[in-house]
Amino acid sequence: MNLHPDYLLNEVEEPADIKGMSLDQLHELADEMRQLILERDEKIGGHVGPNLGIVETTLAYHYVFDSPHDKVIWDVSHQSYPHKMFTGRAQGFLDPDHYEDVSGFTSPEESDHDFFQVGHTSTSIALAVGMAESRDLKHKHENVVAIIGDGSLSGGLAFEGLNNASKLHSNLIIVVNDNNMSIDDHNQGGLYQGLKELRETAGQSANNIFKFMGLDYRYVPDGNDLSAMIKVFEDVKDIDHPIVLHVHTLKGAGYQPAIDNEMAYHWRGPFNGQTGESTTPQPKESYSEAVIDELLSEIKDGTNIAAINAGIPGMFDLKRFEKAYPERYFDVGIAEQMSVTSAVAMAQNGVRPVVFESSTFLQRAYDQLIHDVALNDAPVVMIVRGGTISSESATHQGTFDISYISSLPNIEYLAPTSVEEMISMLKWAISQTDTPVVIRQPERKLLHRPATQTDYSIIDYEIAHQGSEVAIFAVGDFWQLGEDVRQELQKKLNIDATLINPKTVTNIDQQDLHHLQEDHDIVVTLEDGNLSGGFGETIDRYYSASEMKVLNFGAPREFSDNVPYDVLAEWYHLTPELIVDDIEKVVHQI
Amino acid sequence: MNLHPDYLLNEVEEPADIKGMSLDQLHELADEMRQLILERDEKIGGHVGPNLGIVETTLAYHYVFDSPHDKVIWDVSHQSYPHKMFTGRAQGFLDPDHYEDVSGFTSPEESDHDFFQVGHTSTSIALAVGMAESRDLKHKHENVVAIIGDGSLSGGLAFEGLNNASKLHSNLIIVVNDNNMSIDDHNQGGLYQGLKELRETAGQSANNIFKFMGLDYRYVPDGNDLSAMIKVFEDVKDIDHPIVLHVHTLKGAGYQPAIDNEMAYHWRGPFNGQTGESTTPQPKESYSEAVIDELLSEIKDGTNIAAINAGIPGMFDLKRFEKAYPERYFDVGIAEQMSVTSAVAMAQNGVRPVVFESSTFLQRAYDQLIHDVALNDAPVVMIVRGGTISSESATHQGTFDISYISSLPNIEYLAPTSVEEMISMLKWAISQTDTPVVIRQPERKLLHRPATQTDYSIIDYEIAHQGSEVAIFAVGDFWQLGEDVRQELQKKLNIDATLINPKTVTNIDQQDLHHLQEDHDIVVTLEDGNLSGGFGETIDRYYSASEMKVLNFGAPREFSDNVPYDVLAEWYHLTPELIVDDIEKVVHQI
Repeated sequence: MNLHPDYLLNEVEEPADIKGMSLDQLHELADEMRQLILERDEKIGGHVGPNLGIVETTLAYHYVFDSPHDKVIWDVSHQSYPHKMFTGRAQGFLDPDHYEDVSGFTSPEESDHDFFQVGHTSTSIALAVGMAESRDLKHKHENVVAIIGDGSLSGGLAFEGLNNASKLHSNLIIVVNDNNMSIDDHNQGGLYQGLKELRETAGQSANNIFKFMGLDYRYVPDGNDLSAMIKVFEDVKDIDHPIVLHVHTLKGAGYQPAIDNEMAYHWRGPFNGQTGESTTPQPKESYSEAVIDELLSEIKDGTNIAAINAGIPGMFDLKRFEKAYPERYFDVGIAEQMSVTSAVAMAQNGVRPVVFESSTFLQRAYDQLIHDVALNDAPVVMIVRGGTISSESATHQGTFDISYISSLPNIEYLAPTSVEEMISMLKWAISQTDTPVVIRQPERKLLHRPATQTDYSIIDYEIAHQGSEVAIFAVGDFWQLGEDVRQELQKKLNIDATLINPKTVTNIDQQDLHHLQEDHDIVVTLEDGNLSGGFGETIDRYYSASEMKVLNFGAPREFSDNVPYDVLAEWYHLTPELIVDDIEKVVHQI
Repeated sequence: MNLHPDYLLNEVEEPADIKGMSLDQLHELADEMRQLILERDEKIGGHVGPNLGIVETTLAYHYVFDSPHDKVIWDVSHQSYPHKMFTGRAQGFLDPDHYEDVSGFTSPEESDHDFFQVGHTSTSIALAVGMAESRDLKHKHENVVAIIGDGSLSGGLAFEGLNNASKLHSNLIIVVNDNNMSIDDHNQGGLYQGLKELRETAGQSANNIFKFMGLDYRYVPDGNDLSAMIKVFEDVKDIDHPIVLHVHTLKGAGYQPAIDNEMAYHWRGPFNGQTGESTTPQPKESYSEAVIDELLSEIKDGTNIAAINAGIPGMFDLKRFEKAYPERYFDVGIAEQMSVTSAVAMAQNGVRPVVFESSTFLQRAYDQLIHDVALNDAPVVMIVRGGTISSESATHQGTFDISYISSLPNIEYLAPTSVEEMISMLKWAISQTDTPVVIRQPERKLLHRPATQTDYSIIDYEIAHQGSEVAIFAVGDFWQLGEDVRQELQKKLNIDATLINPKTVTNIDQQDLHHLQEDHDIVVTLEDGNLSGGFGETIDRYYSASEMKVLNFGAPREFSDNVPYDVLAEWYHLTPELIVDDIEKVVHQI
C-alpha cells in the first residue's frame, strides 16, 4: 500500500513532470524523497548516505536535462534511488509491497532512463566517453553526463576514463560528486589531498588534476543547494566540449545520524530509524573475527604482518586490526589492482602481507593475480569472501572465483570447511614463503570441526567418512550439504557414501582419487560457485578416460539477480533431495 | 664469442665497478652499451628505442645508488638491457652465443639486482610503494626507486600507485621517464597534454598532477645528459619522502633511425642495421589484414563501426584502418579497462564496436568483461590474439583466455579454423546485436577452408569427416593438428576417426555430443591453450556421467618461458604421434 498518497511525488511519472514545478515544490519533493529513502532502507536495507546526498543533484539534473534523450550515467549506481523515483519507479519507494520490485542499482530492464546495469565503481567516465563517441559517430547532439563520487575516482578505470575524455571535441559533462571522503578517519591517498585543496580554495587552487588533463573545470561549493545546481546545469547544458563539474555535497544530507557516522550509513541492512540499531540479528561469532584474532596473535609473536584491503574494511572486521596496529594496516582505497600488486612487493621484501578481497571486486585485479602474484610465485596470503551462490544482485555475483583463481599456475586456493580449518590454513599460509595462498572464507553457517593437517604444502584429502559406491566431495562452504547428502543417500538408497573434504580447489590428491576407483562407481562434487572452470571440472578431467561416473553440482554459467538462495537451490539442484535424485538416476544406469 | 673484448664494459661485473670511473669513462660505457643494444636487437630482435633512451639514467642510477641494497623497479622492464649489462649479465650482450641466456625483462632468477619478473606495464609504482611500506615495517632505510615511462602512466594501476605513494612518510623516488609519447602521430589523451605542458615550461606549469597528488616534484630537462642525471640522483638519494623526478629523455637516443621512427623501433624483430629492413620474412597474407579488409568493406556498406584498441595497433594492422577512417579509430592508450568499457557504451548506443585485444593484456580488463560486457549482454565484438601455446616469455603467456572468457555468462567465444571462417564469424558478430562475441584469431599457419554456417547464434558443429570409434574435436588453431591426428590414427591404429570443428569454446552442441555416443567410444579434445578451465573440461563435464572416454590435450597449468613450441609440443603431448600413443592406451582398455 502506498504509504504516502498525499506526496507530490505521486504526480511525477516522468522527469518532464517536474519541469513546470516551482522551486518550493521541488524542495517539497526533496523532503519527500529523503523520507522515502529512509523508510525503504530501514525496512529492507540499502545505501543511505549516498542517496541522501545526491537528492538535489538528481532533482536539478531532471529539471534541466531531457532524460532519456540526454543521458546520465551513474557511477556504481547505488546513489540512483532519487533518479528512480522520477523515472517511473516511485512505487518502489512509496509502497513497501513494491520495495523489492526496484533494484538498488540502475537497470535498463526497469527503465529507459537507465543505460547500464552497474554495481562496481569507477566505470562511469569510460561509459560516458563511449556514449559520447558513439553519439558523435551517429551525428547526434544530446548531452552525456557521468556522475561519479570522489570515492570512485581512486579506481584506475576512472583515471583511464578522464585521460580519454579530454580527446573529445564534443559534449561531455562529468559531475564529480565530492562528499569529502578525505575527511574520513584515515588518509585515502594523494588524490584526496588534491580534492580537499580544491574544495578549500573554492576550485581556485592551481593544482588541478582535471585541468592538467586538459579538461574544462568548474567548482560548485554546495551541491545540496538546489537553485545553484539548477543554475550550473543550465549553464553547461549543450556545452561543446568536456567539462568537469566538481560538486561539493554532503553525504547523508538531511539525516543527522548518516552525517555523523557516514561509514555506518553508507550501506546498511535493515535498521530501526529511532534508535539507529540494526534490526537483523548479528551472528555471535564470525570467520572474520577469528582471522583478525589470529593475525593479532601472530604479530604479538613477532611475525611481520601487513593487512591490506581496497576500501572494504567493514567486510573483514579490519577496523579492529587498524586500531591495534595502524602502521600495519593498508587501505589502498577502491583500487584492487594496487592492493594485490603492492602485496606482491611486500611478500618479496620479507613482510607477510594478508590481502582481504571480495570475490566480485577481486575480478579487477585478475591480471595482478597472474602477472604479479602467480608469475613471481610471490607468497602473498589472500582471504576471499563472497564467492558463494547467494541472493546477491547480479552486479555483485562473485561466483567466478574458483574458476579464475584455480586455473592459474602457482597459486594454491584453499577452501576450509570450518573456522578451525580456516585458521589452521591461515597459520600455514603465513608461516611459509614458498607459494601464494588464497583462502576462501566460508559465508554460510559457521561450523566447528578440527583441522586434519597443519602443513598444506601437500594436500591430503580428509576422508571424513569411509563408505563405498558413491564418494562425495564437499568443498568448503558446502561441507554441511555434503553431510546432508550422505545421510539422504543412506536413507533413500541405502548407500553408505564416502564423504571427502578436498581442502583445495586447485591441486588434487592424485593418490586418493586413484584409490577411490577401487570401490566407488560414482563421484559427486559439490561446490558453492560456478561450475564452468570450477573444481568439479578438475575432477571430471581427472576421471575423463576412466570408468568413474562424476556428477557436478554448483551454479550454471549465468547471472542470478536477487534470487533467494532457497529458490536457486531448487533451480540448480542443490538440495540433498534433488542431488540424491540425480545420483539415483546414475546408480540405475550402472 | 665475445665480439668486443676491448670494451670497458668487460671490466664491469658489479655496479660498484663503475663508481670509480671518470665521466669520460662513463661516456665511453654509454657508447658501448648503445652499440651492444643495437647488435643484439639486430640479431635476435628486441626493444630498441626504450633501451637506447634509458642508457644515461641507468648509468647514473648505478653510479649513485648501491644496488641491490637500494632497489630499482623497472616498469614493464623491457628497458632493462643497460641495467643488465652492469649486473653480471654483460655477456648476454657482448657474446652472440649468450644472447638467448638473458631475457628481455627483469628476472630475479637471473640476478639479485632484479626484484620482479615484469612484462606488463604500469605496475612499478604499486610495487615500489609495497617495497617502501615493507622496508618501513622492517625499520630499514634503503632507497626504493621506480622507473616508469610516460606510456605506462596511462594504465589505471599507475594512477592507483601514485595515489597511494603520497601516503608514505619515507623514501620513495619515482622516475617518470618521459620520452614524448604525446608527440606521436595521434593524441594519446589528456595526461599527455599535461606532461607536454610540464616539459615546455621546464616543470614550472602550475598544472601538475604529481603535486596535486601531494607528491614532491622535480623536472630534469635532459635525461640523456649523464652529468645532470648523476647530479639529480645525488640530490634525491636518501630523501625522506616520496618525490617524482620528471625526466625528459629521447627515445632511441644515439641511433637516428630509432629517433625518426620511434614506433617501428620500439620493438623490432631481427633487422639489418644498414638498411633498417626486417631480416625475417613476412607472411604474404594475414588474419589481421583480412579482418581490416572486412571492416573497411562493412563501413563502405553503411555499417557504423568503431575500431578500438589499447596501444597495440601494430598487432592488428590497425594503422591502415586509422588512415581510412580516423574518426572511427580509437586508441585509448595502455588502458585495457577503458577499451572494453567504452566499447560497451558504444554497443548499447547503436554503434558496432570492434575491440582488438592481446590475450595477455586483456587479463587487465577481466572485470570489465564480466561487469560491463557480460552483465549488460552488450553486443561488443572483440578480436583476441595471442592465446596460443607459444615460445613467448612467461610474462606475456596468453594461454588463459579460453578459461577466463568461456566461463562467463552471455559471451560467445568463437574459435575459427580458417580465414574464411573467421571473416564469416566476424560478419555475423557485427550483423547481430543480441550477444557479445569474442573471436579468437588464429596464430599458426593461415588456412583456407570455407565456413559451414553464416549465423552462429546456434552453433552447429562442423563434422568435417564422419568416422567412428574416436571423435576428434580440433579447436581453432589446432585444426591442422586434428587433421594430422586423424591421419595418424588411420595409419597407426586403422581407426577411421571423426573430425569435428566445434567453432566455439563456450556453448556446446548438445545434440551432436549426444549422438556421438552411438558409434564413438572416445572423444579427443585439442585446444591451443590452457587445459584448466578450458574447452576440454567443458566436454569432460558433458560426458562425466556417461560411458564416453574423453582425452584432453592442451597446456598444463604452468608458465612456460621462451621455450620453443616444438619442445613444448613434446612436453605437452601435442604432436600427432604422441597424441595417438595416448589414444592407443585408452583404446586398449575398452
